Amino acid sequence: MNKEKIQKIKPELGGGLRDYLPKDMIPRQKILDTIRGVFESFGFLPIDTPAIEKKVILTGGDPEFKKQIFEIKSPDGEGDLALRFDLTVPLARVVSAYPNEIKKPFKRYQVGKVFRGERSQAGRFKEFLQFDADIVGAPSVLADAEIVALINETLTKLGIKNFLIRVNNRKILNGLAEYAGFKEEKIGEVLRAIDKIDRDGWASVEKDLSRELKSKDSVKAIKAFVDLSASANPLVKARKIMEKSSAASNGIEELERISDYLKAFGVPEKNWKIDFSVARGLGYYTGPVFEAILKDLPQIGSVFSGGRYDDLVSRFGGSSIPATGASIGVDRLFVAMEKLDLINNENSIAKVIVLNFDENCAEYVAEITAKLRRAGITTNLYLGQEKGLKGQLSYAISEGYEYVILAGDEEKSSSKVQLKNTKTRTQENLTLEQLIEKLKTL
Amino acid sequence: MNKEKIQKIKPELGGGLRDYLPKDMIPRQKILDTIRGVFESFGFLPIDTPAIEKKVILTGGDPEFKKQIFEIKSPDGEGDLALRFDLTVPLARVVSAYPNEIKKPFKRYQVGKVFRGERSQAGRFKEFLQFDADIVGAPSVLADAEIVALINETLTKLGIKNFLIRVNNRKILNGLAEYAGFKEEKIGEVLRAIDKIDRDGWASVEKDLSRELKSKDSVKAIKAFVDLSASANPLVKARKIMEKSSAASNGIEELERISDYLKAFGVPEKNWKIDFSVARGLGYYTGPVFEAILKDLPQIGSVFSGGRYDDLVSRFGGSSIPATGASIGVDRLFVAMEKLDLINNENSIAKVIVLNFDENCAEYVAEITAKLRRAGITTNLYLGQEKGLKGQLSYAISEGYEYVILAGDEEKSSSKVQLKNTKTRTQENLTLEQLIEKLKTL
Repeated sequence: MNKEKIQKIKPELGGGLRDYLPKDMIPRQKILDTIRGVFESFGFLPIDTPAIEKKVILTGGDPEFKKQIFEIKSPDGEGDLALRFDLTVPLARVVSAYPNEIKKPFKRYQVGKVFRGERSQAGRFKEFLQFDADIVGAPSVLADAEIVALINETLTKLGIKNFLIRVNNRKILNGLAEYAGFKEEKIGEVLRAIDKIDRDGWASVEKDLSRELKSKDSVKAIKAFVDLSASANPLVKARKIMEKSSAASNGIEELERISDYLKAFGVPEKNWKIDFSVARGLGYYTGPVFEAILKDLPQIGSVFSGGRYDDLVSRFGGSSIPATGASIGVDRLFVAMEKLDLINNENSIAKVIVLNFDENCAEYVAEITAKLRRAGITTNLYLGQEKGLKGQLSYAISEGYEYVILAGDEEKSSSKVQLKNTKTRTQENLTLEQLIEKLKTL
Repeated sequence: MNKEKIQKIKPELGGGLRDYLPKDMIPRQKILDTIRGVFESFGFLPIDTPAIEKKVILTGGDPEFKKQIFEIKSPDGEGDLALRFDLTVPLARVVSAYPNEIKKPFKRYQVGKVFRGERSQAGRFKEFLQFDADIVGAPSVLADAEIVALINETLTKLGIKNFLIRVNNRKILNGLAEYAGFKEEKIGEVLRAIDKIDRDGWASVEKDLSRELKSKDSVKAIKAFVDLSASANPLVKARKIMEKSSAASNGIEELERISDYLKAFGVPEKNWKIDFSVARGLGYYTGPVFEAILKDLPQIGSVFSGGRYDDLVSRFGGSSIPATGASIGVDRLFVAMEKLDLINNENSIAKVIVLNFDENCAEYVAEITAKLRRAGITTNLYLGQEKGLKGQLSYAISEGYEYVILAGDEEKSSSKVQLKNTKTRTQENLTLEQLIEKLKTL
């Protein structure tokens, strides 16, 4: 690289992107470890796929999808590549691509960045980390119930207390046109509208529906249906008013079974409810859908959501394969947990730092550092530009180290070290063996 | 999504990309866990940055870099974005962008996908996972020695025995023009050439150098210099022949100190050596450089490499900040470890699977599953399309489960389960409490 060509460049990110510094990244990794632990305890297995996919894999040939997709110009000239917008479509590709390697049922989890070119808003990012769990080749709604149980267990293990998993069934929504007397082709618009009740309120949604359907009776019927969610026994009542639609009746029956299974899985009743306004935006859902919201932060939207998508895998040839799953938006969850005061910011991981204030003792402190690490004690070594003890000590304290090891000429010649407690301001003169013994008990 | 628009699409990946299915992903995650454990034990802290950066951040305004960069078309119209090609440039940006939040010395690690549009070859991918450790604000070569110690410890903990960390210093190479009598501006070409000795052999490199330098004496001098690496006391001899160059002398002195520090850190002598042919391709190195090769797989290239880059951070304004670090190419390392037979392919993580062959007992098996999980036993639940016991059992065996739990009508009515060992083909009738007790000892 020619130095003259290099300009001074502003160290900026593009819009809708964010960095995680250690104080946020340390607790974020704990969140990821917790999620992985729960997913593995349920028998989900990890896969990984590239962020770059062929564009046609992602869009399914549907031009409607292109608007949120980042297209890529490959320097070697390969065309028609793009960045994935979720981990579900890549899963469907993988299931189709490796029919012999992958035995079904296939319970897989995957964590990875996904990319959506939406306008930035609070808690929404162009690039964000998703953590998904899916069960492919699982026809029974017992699988959907297990996904809801997984959502419940994960949020509980993360220390979130006041959440609600809202459960619905696309099959019921598909019966809505017949029940409310509007044209089948309007169903997309109607679902998009009722999905917003939670965020925008009924008054705003009512306006949209009236404009779209031009029938007061239809809008009234939709309102009556959605309002059932707040009543006792919504499924019993829904069964009555939608008995003409066989799709809806089947969907209601599935939710009844899911209710029973959730009880068997031990999911507390306060943590979930039937909610007929849940539609979920993505086009590929075919059965039960679910989304977890945080009751103390309704405006942040859902943090863990998904549903059944029995037809997606058939996009890649072959027959339909029943599949269900859900996805955590890790970055949005992190923002929410910060607001809920559930994030413990930390500045260090190592237990102790060895200072290095005497050039003649550099080899001695290196030796101590290596021996502590070999004894299983996480150990930092001061390698910065402060030469004096005082400056190094103040760095150690600002980074949150409770224990600091000092070794100068005197310690070196007696093969000892000083262990300083920065909180109690006490100091002990120890041999290396004593030091290791002591640190292991702390 | 309109179903008629959907075509059947081939489930293919683009060139130079790969998937990881569970049998590879389970051991790959263990590798990542091991690396993270070692990095954290050295006091490195995690950060995360987006895969998408402003293009100018990545290229530094240098048009030479563009050839390997994936440019991105953002659907919202934001221009001049690209995918990062390493994690070092984003680190330099982060250090410049958060001068108050980040205290120096800053020891950070980062794991993430990076993207290079190179022609695909064996073990080279367009998208690959890098795991980096760097120390920013560290002027002493003690920091470089710590990076070499980190490489040694990481590869050792991964179970790799026969590796060699080759260490050199860019400052010595910068003195090469003076010593060998060629024009300073040829240094880039000369470094690129000698970097290939290991891969292509001297005969091929000699041709390139002769064409470039048009002086037999210069080429001979270069050969003599590179050959010193194989002799005893290469540093002593190099000091003699390059005494005229103060840059080279300073570089040699640094390597002498690194040698002493490596001894102090306890890095075994057989695991590293001085090698004057190591140049490392990237333009930003300014001091010591290092690369680890696997002696049993020389053709695969280096798996863990890096060096000192004191000027990179100044690209973003402000003064130079001394920095050093190294990077693991995880995908290449994985390919290498597969070849070395160090990868243990596994099909499952959960300890046990609960079968589900009687529709009337679905709630009972869900309850058992949930209770096992709550007792800390990782438990899968069969959710596939096989309805019979036989088919489900053969699935469990093919997925590697040693223990399988069976519960039908009889077990449900007596509140018991059958625990089947698929290897010994024995079976026990147990209460849930007995089951949990038993599984905890296995």
